[in-house]
Amino acid sequence: VSGRWVIISSDRAKRPQPGPLGGCSQQSEACPFCAGNEQETPPEVLAYREQTGGPDGPGWSVRVVPNKYPAVITVSGTAHPEKLYESRPGVGAHEVVIESPEHAVSMALLEDRQVAAVLHAYRDRILDLGKDERWRHVLVYKNEGREAGATLDHVHSQLIALPEIPETVVNEIASARRHYESSGRCLFCKILEHETTEGKRTVDASERFSALCPYAPRFPYETWIVPKTHSAFFERCTEQEYSELAAFLRRILTRLIVLFGKLSFNYVIHSAPHRDGAQGYYHWHIEIMPKLAQAAGFEWGSGSFINPVAPEEAARVLRSAL
Amino acid sequence: VSGRWVIISSDRAKRPQPGPLGGCSQQSEACPFCAGNEQETPPEVLAYREQTGGPDGPGWSVRVVPNKYPAVITVSGTAHPEKLYESRPGVGAHEVVIESPEHAVSMALLEDRQVAAVLHAYRDRILDLGKDERWRHVLVYKNEGREAGATLDHVHSQLIALPEIPETVVNEIASARRHYESSGRCLFCKILEHETTEGKRTVDASERFSALCPYAPRFPYETWIVPKTHSAFFERCTEQEYSELAAFLRRILTRLIVLFGKLSFNYVIHSAPHRDGAQGYYHWHIEIMPKLAQAAGFEWGSGSFINPVAPEEAARVLRSAL
Repeated sequence: VSGRWVIISSDRAKRPQPGPLGGCSQQSEACPFCAGNEQETPPEVLAYREQTGGPDGPGWSVRVVPNKYPAVITVSGTAHPEKLYESRPGVGAHEVVIESPEHAVSMALLEDRQVAAVLHAYRDRILDLGKDERWRHVLVYKNEGREAGATLDHVHSQLIALPEIPETVVNEIASARRHYESSGRCLFCKILEHETTEGKRTVDASERFSALCPYAPRFPYETWIVPKTHSAFFERCTEQEYSELAAFLRRILTRLIVLFGKLSFNYVIHSAPHRDGAQGYYHWHIEIMPKLAQAAGFEWGSGSFINPVAPEEAARVLRSAL
Repeated sequence: VSGRWVIISSDRAKRPQPGPLGGCSQQSEACPFCAGNEQETPPEVLAYREQTGGPDGPGWSVRVVPNKYPAVITVSGTAHPEKLYESRPGVGAHEVVIESPEHAVSMALLEDRQVAAVLHAYRDRILDLGKDERWRHVLVYKNEGREAGATLDHVHSQLIALPEIPETVVNEIASARRHYESSGRCLFCKILEHETTEGKRTVDASERFSALCPYAPRFPYETWIVPKTHSAFFERCTEQEYSELAAFLRRILTRLIVLFGKLSFNYVIHSAPHRDGAQGYYHWHIEIMPKLAQAAGFEWGSGSFINPVAPEEAARVLRSAL
């Protein structure tokens, strides 16, 4: 009816239940992501350690583990196709990036170099997962706070490698290609140029990055971070770029937290599929989505969004926050 | 970039703020939807009164008023188109259906005949708004509970008339048309036949209606109510059908509440656009979406959904709830 694919993942129903929205944080001693509790997670696939130390012990700064309650799994399951419907095994990889050994509850509270290490971990996992012929795309995303869908408070993000490119990325690539074919230019580069000239929706800028409220934001205070020069792949940034991006990302999150206090938000990194030839016209970016309101009946029923805050107003308020 | 339209509605930012999720209900005396407080809403566009009584006074059972904080407005605004972007005035009608004169907080707690009156109000407003040449579609939806996006607790639903058919409805109509053109049959009729035979995803049935968990549900325990015989327009049901649907809808909501206690949910009525010739192949239905989990980074970043409860399991549990 809808043409929509969904991932049915019964394992995820076994996740620890966080209790009602707004409930208390886990205590650090019970948190599976805190240093010292490494045995509570599946064996790590990546960790950064300053001193030499064995895997799955303490001493790490960032640690990546398979999701204990994965949405998709790397072993091939069985599909149960039926007349009328399509179905296939839910293969993929689902990993958790634990962003700090300590029980911090917001990325904005980490040090810049800690956030830079998180970005390095994204890069390393995207490159490693990209070697697996089965995966066509790796989506990095973050749920911070209960209203944003997090079930654990300890700062973390996630990545899912899939055999298909997600619909949202497919649509963005298609728009970018159409624009490139008709004008010979990258759509995102052109938008950045336009927004920088207009100035109404720009929030902040560093040497290499720009933050802006997009023209048609789904959510109040939705903010995108875009590299100023054309670049299709997040995972091909230089060391300098990751360092600068870490500080810039933290500054944007800090602007939001100054405005709204404790804030739940999602972000997602949209980067070109690694084997898709979109590098000429696709432009990676981070979409930050504060959770100040719920998507509700109108949104789910129409596919459209009601946003009570115009992007020009959101950008103005965010600019003045710091 | 996304090809997405959003409604920017600065008036809605002025809505009363309900405080943190899970906060206390309004007291009845402060509730603008309670009988006796009619002056707190814009003048009614429809009300059912047993005794004769003037508009905007007490004595009503169901009352429909323009939304005080509308997402769209009936007077033509001004668009501010810019190079690169499309924009148009946010015209439409946005109304609130107040489902009871008393401060009930769940549709499941209303009497069957009260719910039938609500369905009549939907019908009357859809037919009346359909006379306005500007509107191509009327979307009826309900947000019950804070986690479902409601800002007021008093039972109510909403409808939005728009000059465009919403994307979700456009997609469903396109699927239904493709299926009709290739097979000569209504896709929904065929699904109902298949599901009734399989029995794995059926939840409940009355004489004229069937409830089932769809094959690719976005949300845990998502349940659709579908008329058993082909019908494109919700607003063309008979009196008997509305009465039966009212009791059936309440029974499905009761199943959910028995399972989950106080429940936040959305529902949406998808009915054929009134001037679109889709009646041969489109089939109206109600999509009920319990809010047991949040859409999060993966959903917003991919356009896909992770659902931890298979529809066969959801249907089994819902069947056994009563």
